[in-house]
Amino acid sequence: MPCVRQTWKSETSPQRLIRWHCEDKASVKGKRILTFNANHRSVNNSLRPKLQTPIIIVNFKTYLEATGRKAVELAEKAEKVSKETKTCIAVAPQFADIATVAEAVEIPVFAQHIDPITPGSYTGHVLAESVKEAGATGTLINHSEKQLKLSDIDAAIKLAREKGLVSCVCANNPSVSVATATLKPDIVSIEPPELIGTGIAVSKAQPEVVTNTVKLVREINAKVTILCGAGISHGEDVAVALKLGTQGVLVASGIVKAKDPYSILREFADATKQ
Amino acid sequence: MPCVRQTWKSETSPQRLIRWHCEDKASVKGKRILTFNANHRSVNNSLRPKLQTPIIIVNFKTYLEATGRKAVELAEKAEKVSKETKTCIAVAPQFADIATVAEAVEIPVFAQHIDPITPGSYTGHVLAESVKEAGATGTLINHSEKQLKLSDIDAAIKLAREKGLVSCVCANNPSVSVATATLKPDIVSIEPPELIGTGIAVSKAQPEVVTNTVKLVREINAKVTILCGAGISHGEDVAVALKLGTQGVLVASGIVKAKDPYSILREFADATKQ
Amino acid sequence: MPCVRQTWKSETSPQRLIRWHCEDKASVKGKRILTFNANHRSVNNSLRPKLQTPIIIVNFKTYLEATGRKAVELAEKAEKVSKETKTCIAVAPQFADIATVAEAVEIPVFAQHIDPITPGSYTGHVLAESVKEAGATGTLINHSEKQLKLSDIDAAIKLAREKGLVSCVCANNPSVSVATATLKPDIVSIEPPELIGTGIAVSKAQPEVVTNTVKLVREINAKVTILCGAGISHGEDVAVALKLGTQGVLVASGIVKAKDPYSILREFADATKQ
Amino acid sequence: MPCVRQTWKSETSPQRLIRWHCEDKASVKGKRILTFNANHRSVNNSLRPKLQTPIIIVNFKTYLEATGRKAVELAEKAEKVSKETKTCIAVAPQFADIATVAEAVEIPVFAQHIDPITPGSYTGHVLAESVKEAGATGTLINHSEKQLKLSDIDAAIKLAREKGLVSCVCANNPSVSVATATLKPDIVSIEPPELIGTGIAVSKAQPEVVTNTVKLVREINAKVTILCGAGISHGEDVAVALKLGTQGVLVASGIVKAKDPYSILREFADATKQ
Repeated sequence: MPCVRQTWKSETSPQRLIRWHCEDKASVKGKRILTFNANHRSVNNSLRPKLQTPIIIVNFKTYLEATGRKAVELAEKAEKVSKETKTCIAVAPQFADIATVAEAVEIPVFAQHIDPITPGSYTGHVLAESVKEAGATGTLINHSEKQLKLSDIDAAIKLAREKGLVSCVCANNPSVSVATATLKPDIVSIEPPELIGTGIAVSKAQPEVVTNTVKLVREINAKVTILCGAGISHGEDVAVALKLGTQGVLVASGIVKAKDPYSILREFADATKQ
Repeated sequence: MPCVRQTWKSETSPQRLIRWHCEDKASVKGKRILTFNANHRSVNNSLRPKLQTPIIIVNFKTYLEATGRKAVELAEKAEKVSKETKTCIAVAPQFADIATVAEAVEIPVFAQHIDPITPGSYTGHVLAESVKEAGATGTLINHSEKQLKLSDIDAAIKLAREKGLVSCVCANNPSVSVATATLKPDIVSIEPPELIGTGIAVSKAQPEVVTNTVKLVREINAKVTILCGAGISHGEDVAVALKLGTQGVLVASGIVKAKDPYSILREFADATKQ
Repeated sequence: MPCVRQTWKSETSPQRLIRWHCEDKASVKGKRILTFNANHRSVNNSLRPKLQTPIIIVNFKTYLEATGRKAVELAEKAEKVSKETKTCIAVAPQFADIATVAEAVEIPVFAQHIDPITPGSYTGHVLAESVKEAGATGTLINHSEKQLKLSDIDAAIKLAREKGLVSCVCANNPSVSVATATLKPDIVSIEPPELIGTGIAVSKAQPEVVTNTVKLVREINAKVTILCGAGISHGEDVAVALKLGTQGVLVASGIVKAKDPYSILREFADATKQ
Repeated sequence: MPCVRQTWKSETSPQRLIRWHCEDKASVKGKRILTFNANHRSVNNSLRPKLQTPIIIVNFKTYLEATGRKAVELAEKAEKVSKETKTCIAVAPQFADIATVAEAVEIPVFAQHIDPITPGSYTGHVLAESVKEAGATGTLINHSEKQLKLSDIDAAIKLAREKGLVSCVCANNPSVSVATATLKPDIVSIEPPELIGTGIAVSKAQPEVVTNTVKLVREINAKVTILCGAGISHGEDVAVALKLGTQGVLVASGIVKAKDPYSILREFADATKQ
């Protein structure tokens, strides 16, 4: 059984939570003996792989197939494909699953949203510091299902930058992608909302939207990573997306609702090598 | 060192995460040997104490003093007071801290908000099932800093009931408290927003608001637990709140921002015994 | 040609706008000679008929068929039916059409929404005083297409009461209708959103929703006028709605998008006499 | 007495509202005889002056001093200053006052907001066609008190363009101004929210914000008109704003809440000539 990392109390500073690497030493029926090594910081910073392109970001949304322990299972499948194919795959579970998923896998974990707030009186909001400490290395911003006011997108991108979170801002069309790109996020993802969840891939159904976005965004921002999303369901959709000039895809139901998420994700990862 | 519960893979069903009780068997420098017993369900259902009144709910908001490992530390202090004084104290950490806090303490854990959604395409939203599986036993709804449309309050209360989460709905004045109480939540908490965070206790500054709320709510709902909040800072504020007919308090900065949260919370708990 | 009221400058106080009754004295090609009498207050308060039940409220939404001069034309048809059948019919045009419609007809005019604000720095908001001075005698609140936070519904009802506007609060189901009724609006209208615009009348498709609402609302509020809406398209839908215990209907596309709005509205009005 | 335009029923097509020019032919105590000429289209299109820079836009917000007949009075003062000084001054009254104000004055009238919608089922929303037909020639979009999601700003600008409304998009800082400018509105107005309503002019307190905005916006959009706002209270504030590279100001309380709005507005207009 592969070993997973755990949050545990340190012996030397009992009030401080640190993360340990564990090794399975022995196990008997109904009991298990484990030993732990390493600590939180080294795991979070050194061992966590940097984002590389091409990248596949899997958005877990609030699908039951990707909630709680199933979020961990799906993240483990993504990690397996990532390791097997040496492809950068990130997962974006729900807020309450970030800590558990980040402990279970070594691939990058994204929050699905952060609020444009600093610490304070904001009951029910999502603080950048909170998802960061839980183990997120990045965050989606302005997904079409969680759109923000323009000034809040600007503030959220700045917060992400300050807190060391990778920002992936979603945009519904080319002009909004350009506006977004001027705010200097790390990633812009173009996602026509009318195709989300349809299985009709933006890269095949609206290639001109993708190429137009790439062209216009590049005119004003040479560095930003450009993804596309909506309807991505097959390896070929991914291959086409890359050929159109993007550096990866943002996908949700195409993986999460698939009968065999591992196989489809493997197909996606292989398609990035073509 | 007291032992804490952990999320771990079961040997018998490796894909299923369960929680174990652990006992410290031995430890050597930089290593630790542990054994685990028990399982998830027993912990969550049998061992988790039922809510009792009087109750003190501590809302962690997005204060940095109650984020991440500090959320766990504060929850442990609340648990300590709860055990010492046999007072029901619940904590409401941020979404990303629910799992870690729920593993660390045995007192009830609330989410600060749930969205009125069922599983599906709702990026960045908060699913009842998600906070439940992470370990929450209840949720705040409609806090003045995260207010909802009326139809969404209705839907969120129904969802909480279906999913077995205790619902604590906040209301800004007596008439809204009554409207809320008709929707049959478990708890209504009256919190005049102008007093939140001021240190001026609603129970002392606006006792007529509290008594009026209790009177009007009781006319239409005999069962609902009634709390008050806003500005609660001293044991006396709690004692007065109970004398006015409430069954507890909802508190945030009064505890979270206190120099010594343990002492103030202890003062609160003692005040419920007067 | 029947004479209409006009906004005009008073001779005696040139800076003050008042409304005049006019009589057509004479007219020649391309010119018209008119005389004016009466004033603003008498028109608005004395001459404007009180609301009576049964009532039909026609919501113009933002349909092009009911925008600008077409809003006036449709309001005139409603006025014609109202006068012919002695039925209380109110119209709810868009904000920018309230003044023109209120000048053109003598039937009650409702705003489609007011914001829960008092005068001040609220760019782009809808002030109760503003729609009142433009000629509105009432307002919809919390329509399913313009839902409000619970505390804002409470505030908007109170504002309407203070400013002398009739409040008609919409609710999506029986439990929300009851919650709404505790806030003491003048009118509660139950409108299941899934039937809005379908032509499938709530009174025929979900009679139990209507009767249940009437029963539950009456238990806690004896005075409030209860309407139902969604899908009302035929006279029979109106007749059934009244038989189920409501005192009228809230209708939109059934009239506004009808080929012959006058005829359908006449059918509705006749149905209230059955 | 200067003559004003009126909405009236046409003799030849009684159901169609057109606007007439009027001339005061005679008047006797309590009565008035008027003659009308001209029609709606010529007034709206030919006679309405084009926007020119420098421009002063006066936002009436929901101030009681600029509601209903007081909105007309204030607009008349703005028109007087505009004619006396040959300065372009536009007014932005509340939705319900657009029609009355647009009939009373010949200076440009702006809506304070439009919703990103096409005609349909949008109760309580603000349709571009509606404010246009009421007489608006432009609209504010994304004012800090009525902020929109980014995709809605994009949609509202496109709608304004299609419907022939001048779009003036507000932005809270330089980076948001640039993002906004990529969406090709007619006007961008930079307004730091923390200065709104303070009487501390952005042009004097934060000149670097203004110059930085002008510089950055010009790099990506050579045509857009750039305004600044927030705290503009004196003629000198306007003069400085123009010197910093803007082409005018957006002002609200500085005029609306002034003891003598005419004098201050005259001071503003004179300052544009320096």
